[in-house]
Amino acid sequence: MYRAPVEEIAHTLKIVAGLDDAIAQGRLGDLSDDLVDAILEEAGKFASTRVAPLLQIGDEHGTPLKDADVTMPPGWKEVYREWISGGWNALTGKEEFGGQSLPMMLAIATFEMWNSGSMAFGIGPTLTLGAIEALEAHATDELKQTFLPKLVSGEWMGTMNLTEPQAGSDVGALRTRAERAEDGTYRIFGSKIFITYGEHDLTENIIHLVLARLPDAPAGTKGISLFLVPKFLVNEDGSLGARNDVFCGGIEHKMGIHGSPTCTMIYGDGFARAKKPGAVGWLVGEENRGLACMFTMMNNARLAVGIQGVAVAEAAYQKALAYAEERRQMRAPGWTGEGMSPIIEHPDVQRNLLTMKGLTAAARSIAYACAHAIDMAKSGTGDDARHWADRANLLTPVAKAFSTDVGVDVASIGIQVHGGMGFIEETGAAQLLRDARIAPIYEGTNGIQAIDLVQRKLPLGGGEHIKTYVAELRAVAKSVAASNSADFGETGQRLLASLEDLETTSLWLQQALAKGKISAAFAGATPYLRLFGLAAGATYLAKSALGSEQAGRTALARFFAENLLSETSALKDRVIHGAASLFGARSALAS
Amino acid sequence: MYRAPVEEIAHTLKIVAGLDDAIAQGRLGDLSDDLVDAILEEAGKFASTRVAPLLQIGDEHGTPLKDADVTMPPGWKEVYREWISGGWNALTGKEEFGGQSLPMMLAIATFEMWNSGSMAFGIGPTLTLGAIEALEAHATDELKQTFLPKLVSGEWMGTMNLTEPQAGSDVGALRTRAERAEDGTYRIFGSKIFITYGEHDLTENIIHLVLARLPDAPAGTKGISLFLVPKFLVNEDGSLGARNDVFCGGIEHKMGIHGSPTCTMIYGDGFARAKKPGAVGWLVGEENRGLACMFTMMNNARLAVGIQGVAVAEAAYQKALAYAEERRQMRAPGWTGEGMSPIIEHPDVQRNLLTMKGLTAAARSIAYACAHAIDMAKSGTGDDARHWADRANLLTPVAKAFSTDVGVDVASIGIQVHGGMGFIEETGAAQLLRDARIAPIYEGTNGIQAIDLVQRKLPLGGGEHIKTYVAELRAVAKSVAASNSADFGETGQRLLASLEDLETTSLWLQQALAKGKISAAFAGATPYLRLFGLAAGATYLAKSALGSEQAGRTALARFFAENLLSETSALKDRVIHGAASLFGARSALAS
Repeated sequence: MYRAPVEEIAHTLKIVAGLDDAIAQGRLGDLSDDLVDAILEEAGKFASTRVAPLLQIGDEHGTPLKDADVTMPPGWKEVYREWISGGWNALTGKEEFGGQSLPMMLAIATFEMWNSGSMAFGIGPTLTLGAIEALEAHATDELKQTFLPKLVSGEWMGTMNLTEPQAGSDVGALRTRAERAEDGTYRIFGSKIFITYGEHDLTENIIHLVLARLPDAPAGTKGISLFLVPKFLVNEDGSLGARNDVFCGGIEHKMGIHGSPTCTMIYGDGFARAKKPGAVGWLVGEENRGLACMFTMMNNARLAVGIQGVAVAEAAYQKALAYAEERRQMRAPGWTGEGMSPIIEHPDVQRNLLTMKGLTAAARSIAYACAHAIDMAKSGTGDDARHWADRANLLTPVAKAFSTDVGVDVASIGIQVHGGMGFIEETGAAQLLRDARIAPIYEGTNGIQAIDLVQRKLPLGGGEHIKTYVAELRAVAKSVAASNSADFGETGQRLLASLEDLETTSLWLQQALAKGKISAAFAGATPYLRLFGLAAGATYLAKSALGSEQAGRTALARFFAENLLSETSALKDRVIHGAASLFGARSALAS
Repeated sequence: MYRAPVEEIAHTLKIVAGLDDAIAQGRLGDLSDDLVDAILEEAGKFASTRVAPLLQIGDEHGTPLKDADVTMPPGWKEVYREWISGGWNALTGKEEFGGQSLPMMLAIATFEMWNSGSMAFGIGPTLTLGAIEALEAHATDELKQTFLPKLVSGEWMGTMNLTEPQAGSDVGALRTRAERAEDGTYRIFGSKIFITYGEHDLTENIIHLVLARLPDAPAGTKGISLFLVPKFLVNEDGSLGARNDVFCGGIEHKMGIHGSPTCTMIYGDGFARAKKPGAVGWLVGEENRGLACMFTMMNNARLAVGIQGVAVAEAAYQKALAYAEERRQMRAPGWTGEGMSPIIEHPDVQRNLLTMKGLTAAARSIAYACAHAIDMAKSGTGDDARHWADRANLLTPVAKAFSTDVGVDVASIGIQVHGGMGFIEETGAAQLLRDARIAPIYEGTNGIQAIDLVQRKLPLGGGEHIKTYVAELRAVAKSVAASNSADFGETGQRLLASLEDLETTSLWLQQALAKGKISAAFAGATPYLRLFGLAAGATYLAKSALGSEQAGRTALARFFAENLLSETSALKDRVIHGAASLFGARSALAS
């Protein structure tokens, strides 16, 4: 069973991501080191003892749908209620709405723990947080007063309604329509698919944020507006009113995260249980400016999905490690113990476990660094705020895509470490891969993230921001090289070489874009993002080791640098030299 | 739905693996090119129209167990009967037992097709083939006469009973015991787990080959004997006699291949339905020499599992390609068509599809080359036979491990190409990953294959065989380099560089073993095997292109060489420089 790695999480937050410095600079209010420790400790306890036991229950029971009602798996409602009572949903919400105004760093660290316990459980509050952020940034005061207190507390949950069958990655193609009503509200008609937690019985009300198009809206993404559509209308005294005309029309049968209901949502089809035709909605932000509001939700949601990759990887690592320490097969070379050795003694199994641990720690560091940048942007002003906003924007696609690829890879290696038992569902290793497999897809596929990184993030700060970032990483690498510690082996040189690869490819892609070679730049996007993740992650592992007394951290940084980092030169080659043969090979794909 | 790539399979067999040359040299009897084409064509038809429709049915229905009886999914029995009526099970069996004595190359090519249709269907006959080979090589004439005709025809199926809870990869640790009976037969007592097709209703009888230990047997692998234990005893006239004391005690709930019953088999526990205590068994081969017999079964089974990796990869590629041609999202750079472009026009999707196709073709080539070596060894004598046996032995672990890793990777990319639909079970992309995930585990985990390659295969021919092999590959690379065809781009140089990496690492590992640095050699085994697979596979793709008029083959070989092959230098680094940091990092794994 998962046990939250509280010490490792705290160290990564404080030393690697920069929480300690931010506190010292007074940028996080009256947050103290002790409070951070206390929160992480409590969250770890809740995740390990209350959330983790939901994991297999959710997988086995799923979320059956009957007459538009969804029943959550046994025990989930109780744990969710306990979880919101503990204030866990309210960590980052504003104080005026009952939130604790704590930094994103703490939110992301606790999200990691909930998702290690159960990804299907963790994804629900992620969506609520997205709704909170969109409303905080764009809604009218009246909407805020009505909805934010209960969303912040978690008494109600929120959803994001973007996808339609013909509009997945391309939200501009959506057709759900909104009509203006005389009272200033709107009526929404249409259907949405893949709506996570679209319907469930965890909370009495569900607040849908829905992208739709007004009759006179321009075509494409410039004609999209965002609406708030509650499951139940809310009376003036705050009590629940009429059932709104939004219903769950179906639940997907998915590969994993069975405990998370993925719903088809039908808006305004005059379903028998609704009294009036059309789902009543309120505009959030301005008409036809819904895309900007959506990006507010999506940016942090992308980071939150990235942390799901970290979370499942951590759970898979712990499970594989425990099995490898227990299971005995054959005698490893050099084994002098009695009988068969635990399989952890076999070099190939060690390679697997170290790869799992190294990738997990690297992905965690990147995600936390991204959360740190969000907090710094929030607490800064002027150029400083812009710098940190750029940093958060730069790291978001990497935190999303690199981490979720790591989640899948690590979960798959975890199965392998278990041998035949890994393929048996009761063991739980297989579920982690099945759960993890969605994360590279939702909130923008990893291919879209890579293109976002190349197309929108490399140009940040006039193309200078990425250089500043690489320079910061290089300073860490130089410290390692200068440390003259034999324990680091070749780590310093290896880091410098990979950062050189990162810089070279960044520059090459910037130039390709500048020359209008869009296809060539896009063709290299995925290998580039992985290169970025490996080089940055390896550097963060070294930073973690430099700031720690534990020999294990240095050893892990070295293993990563000397075993996994050699991939960056291959990736650089793929970015710079790969496109020509890719475009030439269209003929090989004829079906 | 899967459509067998008959032309590609034929080309790979004939030109890449060497079937044409073998026919020309008269080493395959009276087999003709036309017969090969006819067989592949018919097999392709059967696989596409009859086997492939079983895929989702098997996944959904599974193989329920009731009172020790297993019911196969709807329609499976009918298709199996039709399949054996077509003679497909008898391709390679000896003519004296009703077989067609066709080469292993054809068996493997048809196995690919059955497994592309449904891995859960294809694995059953694989086990039967293993049983046939073990009996042909080691059983008494009486056993052969009684059992081989019906096993060769497929009227009965066979199983391999190796694994016990404490004895997975380490068969020497098994405890199932065999007692000598007065009539020269034996009584088997014990239980086995993970027995594929251990019980089912496809055939009237099931012939179990069971590893067990005699009371006076030496400890470890030198005290293991192989026994034939039929589900029903066979009367002298060939009719079925008494029910033997072997029963299915449980079915595993697995991540994938739900249509393949994975059974716990109980031998000799006096189960109520058996008349006599102890399962009646017959010795196969000599007492305490069961391991040698088992290796006869296992070697070809490893190749057959390797082909499962190829098969699922092919199915996943076809599914993803069809989706990418159909699905429209956004406008790809340079897209001049109406509205949104099919996603195949996006460079990142092209990279995914080409990676899928390239890895699949590379893995197929290696597997077919391995089958070719088996056929050559069988048709040769003296040094020639030894040379080809060494070749088959060298390629078997690569064909098993590289191909099954490819199966998992390609199936996972296939999900990604589908976006959100890939995670929905109805689409079928998810099932391919769930099915594929077992292949790197069973028949010896891929880690074991890598160690086998390093420890037992690199020393073949006094360490010279690998050099001969690399020299052959290098000749192909030189032909490409000398072809001066612009279409090949840098393929020639890239191949030569990777083959250099293969040679360098092979030599390094041989020397490490010679110096007794076993741990260091084992630590590099997995990266070495992958390097081997990439370098050899890339060379075979080039060979395929050199022997073809199709521009697509050249383009694919070039894409592989210029995009995927750069990984070999990173892998070389991992083999040669990775071990030190790996051994130093044991402290990082403390739980």
